[in-house]
Amino acid sequence: MEFKFSEKVAHLQASQIREILKYSADPEVISLAAGSPAPEALPAKELEELSAQILAEEPNIAFQYGVTEGYTPLREEVKKLLAQKGVYNPEYDDVVITSGAQQANELSAKVLCNEGDMLITESPCFIGSLNAFKSYHVDLQGVPLEEDGINIAALEEKLKTGKVKLVYLIPNFQNPTSSTMSWEKRVKAFELCKKYGAVILEDNPYGDLRFAGEDIKCIKTLDTEGMVIYSGTFSKILSPGIRVGYVCAHKDIIQKIVVCKQVADVHTAMWSQMLCYRFLKKYDMDEHLAKLRKVYEHKTSLMLDEIRKNFSSKITYTTPQGGLFIWCTLPEGTTTQQMIDFCTTAVKDYKVAIVPGSAFSVHDGEECRSIRLNFSTPTDANIVKGIEILGRLSKEMFGD
Amino acid sequence: MEFKFSEKVAHLQASQIREILKYSADPEVISLAAGSPAPEALPAKELEELSAQILAEEPNIAFQYGVTEGYTPLREEVKKLLAQKGVYNPEYDDVVITSGAQQANELSAKVLCNEGDMLITESPCFIGSLNAFKSYHVDLQGVPLEEDGINIAALEEKLKTGKVKLVYLIPNFQNPTSSTMSWEKRVKAFELCKKYGAVILEDNPYGDLRFAGEDIKCIKTLDTEGMVIYSGTFSKILSPGIRVGYVCAHKDIIQKIVVCKQVADVHTAMWSQMLCYRFLKKYDMDEHLAKLRKVYEHKTSLMLDEIRKNFSSKITYTTPQGGLFIWCTLPEGTTTQQMIDFCTTAVKDYKVAIVPGSAFSVHDGEECRSIRLNFSTPTDANIVKGIEILGRLSKEMFGD
Repeated sequence: MEFKFSEKVAHLQASQIREILKYSADPEVISLAAGSPAPEALPAKELEELSAQILAEEPNIAFQYGVTEGYTPLREEVKKLLAQKGVYNPEYDDVVITSGAQQANELSAKVLCNEGDMLITESPCFIGSLNAFKSYHVDLQGVPLEEDGINIAALEEKLKTGKVKLVYLIPNFQNPTSSTMSWEKRVKAFELCKKYGAVILEDNPYGDLRFAGEDIKCIKTLDTEGMVIYSGTFSKILSPGIRVGYVCAHKDIIQKIVVCKQVADVHTAMWSQMLCYRFLKKYDMDEHLAKLRKVYEHKTSLMLDEIRKNFSSKITYTTPQGGLFIWCTLPEGTTTQQMIDFCTTAVKDYKVAIVPGSAFSVHDGEECRSIRLNFSTPTDANIVKGIEILGRLSKEMFGD
Repeated sequence: MEFKFSEKVAHLQASQIREILKYSADPEVISLAAGSPAPEALPAKELEELSAQILAEEPNIAFQYGVTEGYTPLREEVKKLLAQKGVYNPEYDDVVITSGAQQANELSAKVLCNEGDMLITESPCFIGSLNAFKSYHVDLQGVPLEEDGINIAALEEKLKTGKVKLVYLIPNFQNPTSSTMSWEKRVKAFELCKKYGAVILEDNPYGDLRFAGEDIKCIKTLDTEGMVIYSGTFSKILSPGIRVGYVCAHKDIIQKIVVCKQVADVHTAMWSQMLCYRFLKKYDMDEHLAKLRKVYEHKTSLMLDEIRKNFSSKITYTTPQGGLFIWCTLPEGTTTQQMIDFCTTAVKDYKVAIVPGSAFSVHDGEECRSIRLNFSTPTDANIVKGIEILGRLSKEMFGD
């Protein structure tokens, strides 16, 4: 039987990362391709204890249906955290718990965008969000990303068309480039979107993982009327496997997101939400985050040192101030195909998995000679070994 | 700020059930409005023990990212269960774990339906599915539901238009009516959909909860080419709060569902999936289900007895062979508004919550004089008290 799929999904493909991750199933492969938190950064023991308490004390809440908006005590704690960041304005904002920030971003697009509406992302951009937007058949347009954030002039060009519904930004330690948007650009992007009537979707999964430089306030802190939707997650600071994120936005938007979440999965798993709540109540989050930042600071320094020692000098790379990734750019003149060959050879013949930058292209076929390296998931030993191997391959392919 | 929502969600409203459930927050209200499993039917102790084992033995699997398709050991167990029912055909089917059957049904519509495509449901129909379908702006058309399933002649009329993409059916103990589709109608509906090229989405959340009558095989057992999508859930037999369901369909459909699930929530919470897997491995499911059926058989008999004793004789009601609901129809001539008044008076003045049947109308404004009573959630004492109170109100409004 031949199936006729909806136009919005017919063109969607499983992400290239997943294909590379399949090679990673080979236990001999060193994976620098993931985006998972460091195992040593997961508070597994604490969560295990909290879980035992939850199931002993409140099994009927953990195992029965909950409300779509989320477990009320957790919603209240998240509101407090966001208010501290200046991100939640009780006058007009509301907060809903989602099944990861992925769901927050997907539902934001669903409630705002008709098929064909223009949606702007940074280029390159996190593939999970790109595919979420594509699955609603929007007119997806990438705007070049620079070291200090999206190109403002190019953004304004798009906004001037009057057709832009939503502008999706990851201002802190963007995935995949790890670039951070300057305060000046945040203000300008906000003002332009306000002027042209576009809603901003500010995705901040890595904001708490800053291990260098000064914090920059969220775009949502500039908001005075609810034109910024803010999404966050517990995936990088507690655990990704529990699937808990949240979205903070104007009450009217939240109301629509709730209806769409209700038809998507009724509510987020109760145990997961209760775990987050109890962790926030019991532990000092600042102390916990300080520990995480130390882990990531160490791992990124280690990887950068090894890159300096081993890589062909023609390869450039970012020096992230936070997040989970280093973005390396192969020598000028390298074609997209050569970059993909580099990644494929690395995993097939050298047993080191990395992600080709083209996986994050807004549209297929865009030129790209960058690759994404993850330093959070591998052990220290594997960082050293993996980069040493990649270095050898890089010199073979591109010279010293 | 005025937001312009997408056309597909602009018309969506939170369900009427949720509004009534808000009154139920009053601890004095007896709720016959929910759809939750009986608390005594949840294997909370067993799940608590299994959880402790999971977090002690495999914390890194529980807390880290998993694959979108689902936790492999659980997928394999579900395939075995479905193969036993004749529902999974390894030649062309595949199985994916979803965040409840809600997600399975929503994603099935998303991958198959363009905006405006015709989608058939039984009328009345489960509101969660109705809203999921509406959120993709399909041309939703209800076909009258009879005691033995959907009206076949009316179904054929719709199919003859050649525009039907998907036919959504809950053949066992349908929500809200608790009616069960006869084998003859299952065969006819299958043959008609095959003839006219429509895919069937068979939702079977209550199939294992049969406490009277003979099992009837699933429509999916008739499938020889993958034109039936089958969705199931652990919500009614283990726990709804963990949010684990599954979908079994042709590999090509599953592939698209996986891409859409990836952008929806990346994967279902790992702990929830691991709990289901360990329960299936450790406990005898037939024994467990036999216990549940006893609980529900008792509760439905009790509620039916009380209805017989207390209700106005002008009210008719179904005698379910399974599931969680009794569907009562108010006397001929009762208007939709009078039915809603009955429900509103019941919860506001008499503190008994029930769901107006109009909540399950395919389109707003359809005539309905039925109400849905749930017997699984209330205690025995509250069933007796709730029905006694409703009986008094029914006699006041409709006579003896």
